[in-house]
Amino acid sequence: MEKFEINILGCGSAVPTPFHNPASQVINFRDHLYMIDCGEGTQSMMRRMGLKFSRLRHIFISHMHGDHCLGLPGILSTMGLLEVGGHINVYVPRQGLDIMERTIRFFCRDEEPEIHIIPIDGASTLLDTPSLTVRAIPLYHRVEAYGFIFSEKPKSRHINGEMIRYLNVPIRDLPAIREGADWTAPDGTIYPNSRLTSPPDPSRSYAYCSDTVYNPAVAKAVGPVDLLYHEATYTSDLAERAIARGHSTAAQAAAIAKEAGAKALLIGHYSKRYRDTEPLRAEAAEIFPDVTAATESMTIRL
Amino acid sequence: MEKFEINILGCGSAVPTPFHNPASQVINFRDHLYMIDCGEGTQSMMRRMGLKFSRLRHIFISHMHGDHCLGLPGILSTMGLLEVGGHINVYVPRQGLDIMERTIRFFCRDEEPEIHIIPIDGASTLLDTPSLTVRAIPLYHRVEAYGFIFSEKPKSRHINGEMIRYLNVPIRDLPAIREGADWTAPDGTIYPNSRLTSPPDPSRSYAYCSDTVYNPAVAKAVGPVDLLYHEATYTSDLAERAIARGHSTAAQAAAIAKEAGAKALLIGHYSKRYRDTEPLRAEAAEIFPDVTAATESMTIRL
Repeated sequence: MEKFEINILGCGSAVPTPFHNPASQVINFRDHLYMIDCGEGTQSMMRRMGLKFSRLRHIFISHMHGDHCLGLPGILSTMGLLEVGGHINVYVPRQGLDIMERTIRFFCRDEEPEIHIIPIDGASTLLDTPSLTVRAIPLYHRVEAYGFIFSEKPKSRHINGEMIRYLNVPIRDLPAIREGADWTAPDGTIYPNSRLTSPPDPSRSYAYCSDTVYNPAVAKAVGPVDLLYHEATYTSDLAERAIARGHSTAAQAAAIAKEAGAKALLIGHYSKRYRDTEPLRAEAAEIFPDVTAATESMTIRL
Repeated sequence: MEKFEINILGCGSAVPTPFHNPASQVINFRDHLYMIDCGEGTQSMMRRMGLKFSRLRHIFISHMHGDHCLGLPGILSTMGLLEVGGHINVYVPRQGLDIMERTIRFFCRDEEPEIHIIPIDGASTLLDTPSLTVRAIPLYHRVEAYGFIFSEKPKSRHINGEMIRYLNVPIRDLPAIREGADWTAPDGTIYPNSRLTSPPDPSRSYAYCSDTVYNPAVAKAVGPVDLLYHEATYTSDLAERAIARGHSTAAQAAAIAKEAGAKALLIGHYSKRYRDTEPLRAEAAEIFPDVTAATESMTIRL
């Protein structure tokens, strides 16, 4: 299957610790890189994880708190120094447009890559390519915040090469067959598509939800994705603090995964008090079976 | 002797590498912390090196290139979250005042620490305490840039306790004796200061010069400091590139140390091409005897 990987560059929260970096992930979809959030030090983690700046063309910022976006001017300026060329799209909540625009224009004076700063205005489709869509969904934090859903588009059926060669099917007919058409031979025989192809690979999807308080509306917007990354800043004994700070507990992250019908859950955005993330993972696993606690440098293949 | 230590948090240059962080140093002078430059990830290095945010009250920014200042909003925002209280002075070149002010006000919404942003306007004394002065000197880079000189003030002479007790010198006379006065006993005998005290500890000084092209004016402004940190971005085979980019070679850093009459030289701000910094150190050592190549987490005691 084509590459669809989630790379964890940082899964800590606002206050830095020696164990975690601030928020950042890079989605590798068919060797194109898409970044979600860009905390301080993200450019350095790109290097450490061997992710190529030249393949990065889209950066999505969930909200304008420093631990999610303060690495942005630095990475863009580095891409200028490295002469990666071309252009890069940076999607930021409307609230952050002015300050990000000013900061980026001050620090990134190279002509390339051309930096396009695109506001996110409510639930919307941010990117729509022949193979992928990226949508923004509202989250519920102390400031305007968005989750992102990466959905692979439905794929073509697999051609049964042996059968195609045996029947001498002309190449010009293959695109239609890949999309499910039957094939009529020169002698008028109709070959049903099921004999010429096998089913396509499933279309995969990934959702990123950080930062947010628990809200069932998030589960509804996310739906049955293959993998849900959901913030789990605290264990349930700090549920009140979670509400006060606009965050979720590990149990609430698991509840969202369950309500959404997600296949697997990845948690992160740990408060600095958790040196060991196992209590967070264990708490979520009581509610939802397939839970992984994110760590820096982790790569998950969908 | 009282503490006067230089902590290296980052000694790389603009493009991040897995081996170096962008520029930042913390001077520990009698357990008060003074930061010079604050590249991305500096707050995380503070934690890693066990340097306390609550002891940091002054941050000096040499110039407004991202690798010297993009960690500033993050560290200030973290100090708010950690509730360190009080106030903090941030000194930035006039050129960067507007953008830094806007960025800091956007990301740092806590009432404490109160953040004072102070413009640096040419060669000037930025800080003058009873024990320390910090001066800005002009550097010669592509943008307005400053070096900083930390000078310990002359100290009092050491009291010879045995003699003082033997002569029954009253406590009220000690301050004058510490400053060098002779002492007249009740019987009229004059005791010369040299019998009552020994010479004070030497006053130490440290200069930070990064980023700059080679310019003899820098040596003149620095003078005979105990330790000079000078950027050494390239080896001499790249001398032309150094000029074009507003940087110095290792040989030029050594020449400045020699011309200034510095006691020792510390080099840093290495271009990403030097995985091993020994060629830079060796080049400088041919011109100036006491050269150290900075590395992250290094602490140098003056």
